[in-house]
Amino acid sequence: MSDAVTSGIPLPAGAHLVAGGVTAPRGFRAGATYCGIKTDATAHDFALLLAEVPCVTAATFTTSRTAAHPVQVCQEHLAATGHRAQAVVVNSSNANCSNGPQGLADARRTADLAGAKLGIDPQLVMVSSTGIIGRPLPMDRIEHGIAIVEVSPDGGEAFSGAIITTDTRTKLTAIEFELDGKTVRLGGTTKGAGMIYPNMATMLCYITTDAAVDPEFLRDTLRGCVADSFNMVCVDGDMSTNDTVLCLANGFAGNAPVRGGTPDGACFAAALDYVTQYLAREIARDGEGATRLMTVVVHGAASDADARRAARAVTASPLWQCAVAGGDANWGRILAALGASGADFEHERLEISINGLRLVADGHATAYDPAAAKQMMQETGIDVAVDLHAGACEATAWGCDLTHGYIDENTTYFR
Amino acid sequence: MSDAVTSGIPLPAGAHLVAGGVTAPRGFRAGATYCGIKTDATAHDFALLLAEVPCVTAATFTTSRTAAHPVQVCQEHLAATGHRAQAVVVNSSNANCSNGPQGLADARRTADLAGAKLGIDPQLVMVSSTGIIGRPLPMDRIEHGIAIVEVSPDGGEAFSGAIITTDTRTKLTAIEFELDGKTVRLGGTTKGAGMIYPNMATMLCYITTDAAVDPEFLRDTLRGCVADSFNMVCVDGDMSTNDTVLCLANGFAGNAPVRGGTPDGACFAAALDYVTQYLAREIARDGEGATRLMTVVVHGAASDADARRAARAVTASPLWQCAVAGGDANWGRILAALGASGADFEHERLEISINGLRLVADGHATAYDPAAAKQMMQETGIDVAVDLHAGACEATAWGCDLTHGYIDENTTYFR
Repeated sequence: MSDAVTSGIPLPAGAHLVAGGVTAPRGFRAGATYCGIKTDATAHDFALLLAEVPCVTAATFTTSRTAAHPVQVCQEHLAATGHRAQAVVVNSSNANCSNGPQGLADARRTADLAGAKLGIDPQLVMVSSTGIIGRPLPMDRIEHGIAIVEVSPDGGEAFSGAIITTDTRTKLTAIEFELDGKTVRLGGTTKGAGMIYPNMATMLCYITTDAAVDPEFLRDTLRGCVADSFNMVCVDGDMSTNDTVLCLANGFAGNAPVRGGTPDGACFAAALDYVTQYLAREIARDGEGATRLMTVVVHGAASDADARRAARAVTASPLWQCAVAGGDANWGRILAALGASGADFEHERLEISINGLRLVADGHATAYDPAAAKQMMQETGIDVAVDLHAGACEATAWGCDLTHGYIDENTTYFR
Repeated sequence: MSDAVTSGIPLPAGAHLVAGGVTAPRGFRAGATYCGIKTDATAHDFALLLAEVPCVTAATFTTSRTAAHPVQVCQEHLAATGHRAQAVVVNSSNANCSNGPQGLADARRTADLAGAKLGIDPQLVMVSSTGIIGRPLPMDRIEHGIAIVEVSPDGGEAFSGAIITTDTRTKLTAIEFELDGKTVRLGGTTKGAGMIYPNMATMLCYITTDAAVDPEFLRDTLRGCVADSFNMVCVDGDMSTNDTVLCLANGFAGNAPVRGGTPDGACFAAALDYVTQYLAREIARDGEGATRLMTVVVHGAASDADARRAARAVTASPLWQCAVAGGDANWGRILAALGASGADFEHERLEISINGLRLVADGHATAYDPAAAKQMMQETGIDVAVDLHAGACEATAWGCDLTHGYIDENTTYFR
């Protein structure tokens, strides 16, 4: 399980990694192509995921008041079908957000065209877009993409490659484990890079499984997993307009549908935790301009909400992000972020360690060796451990450093 | 009033600018020196402000759970004296925060030493520190500073120069106006640069007036003014541990004490609004690495809170800050920030203009000229006007762009 060790997210007991991402589970095919939206014609910008049958589907979307048009279409379709979906169409490099009535019509037409090509009800088609806001979706290119894209049982990696924008690498994983005596698989992929904060976006994530899962249980479990994964990632504190997490379960494994309050339910939830946390962490590791991954674990919080806000506050502090970039153990910036977070604690009891070196105890500096602290800050993984000594709750958040690369990416992208 | 025009904050009717900052009002003296905390021995790092008599004093402080030791001492002293103060001692380059019991003792001893030198009750001494967190305050240097610093009636500018850290320039203003048939003056100074967000800090601000002011009215008015000024500034979204705004009124103008609900009260409040908003805006204009000042005015909000959070969200968006740095009218980033702000509005009614050019109406792009938009984004002042069309409330916030300069300032400062 060398990859699992590298990832830092422990695999659930009895599970092992498999290849293929979203097409690792049986009964899913995917593919990608270049339809002409990205300027680099050697890259893919159009992707299709297709299940052999309509799937039990759970979803979470951005909570932005300016949600993009495809988000609205997904929500309408899921409401109309009782949360079932069979296909996902994604374009990158154009967010189809804030394009007025035409934007909504374009998102609907994308689903219609895909449904016609695939011979399925258009309401079973989910649509996603990611990229620049406020540019009309080039429907001629979308139509071209729908016409030429092909899907195959090993198309998961191609799908992952077509949905990314400023990401430097694809992000996918899949695991195999047992449920009800059957072998089941759970695969997922995501994209991230910039505009990454609370309810995620321009973040997209697609998860597939061949397990049979009770719809209500899938919905509740996905919501919980997203709270502990994507909603605990920060690149820059900007929540976006397009964030979408979709989880499709086709039941091909033949297990009895997984329900809550059962050993199988716990097992499936652990698997979904693994996939979502692995992918969330990959988003942080590949944040725009990032050179270092930051993991912040807060212990001893008075409440779950306090643990989350304290952990997130550290990942979201530009000053601490800069210190991480510069390799400086400037714990004062962590402390300031915690102090401003709104979490309840006593300054005099605060404890902060980085990569195992305790820098702060009883709210002030320990007699740590500055040379050791400097050395430790050269690691590519910076693990911040905080103990608020205010209770028994804890939370983990992921982030990255803030570098010249982020500024370059976001000041010169349009030239 | 050429300077008033430059500042962009309108002077109150009947007021005019005068020189001197915090020593412009009668009965205040100030001075500064180098005591040895800054590495640059040609700079000042120690400042003293002295009133001839104990003053009616109002104050606001950081709401951080990790407030610095001098903040605690100020709060204790104000409680003990019934909100009166006569002197302010400030050191820059060391925040005296998170130094444990020794830090608190050092802050108290600073007040004691200053009181002894000045021959006043130490509880009438306010102490402030700004700089790096977690380094013991070098008391030998502080003692040296107290011993050698001298004050004079024209020391306001020197005071302003000694309290700054990464600021590129001093920030001070003073105005003269009439109250109760008497000529009164109100002067202020501040420092800012980094770690600038909600309840301000490592932001310090000192305001003096020779007006006689009712204590309760002064407290309420200062609180309102800070809400509309310093609490509407963002450089990087990091709230700090040391923020302090102090307003000292010595009554030397001989007016009847200003009270609420009177024409004089309104006049004084307008003057204090001017000084606090002018200084707050200067903090944004001189943010770390800033090359452009951003002013965001939100109209049509459903509530005052919504107007504030919408305006602040735009100033706090790193992506939009990068677009401002790059001179790109990427309004999608403004829209995303508004959508994520939590303010209530309909996407379809949103209107956004920059420097008078309307880019978004009815929630989507107008037929604006891209060349004109690009040209307009080359200005050093970027005025964003948003209409949420959701009500009648409005708010103004100030911010700056995000550049390589910010990264340099905060990744290499310790080398």
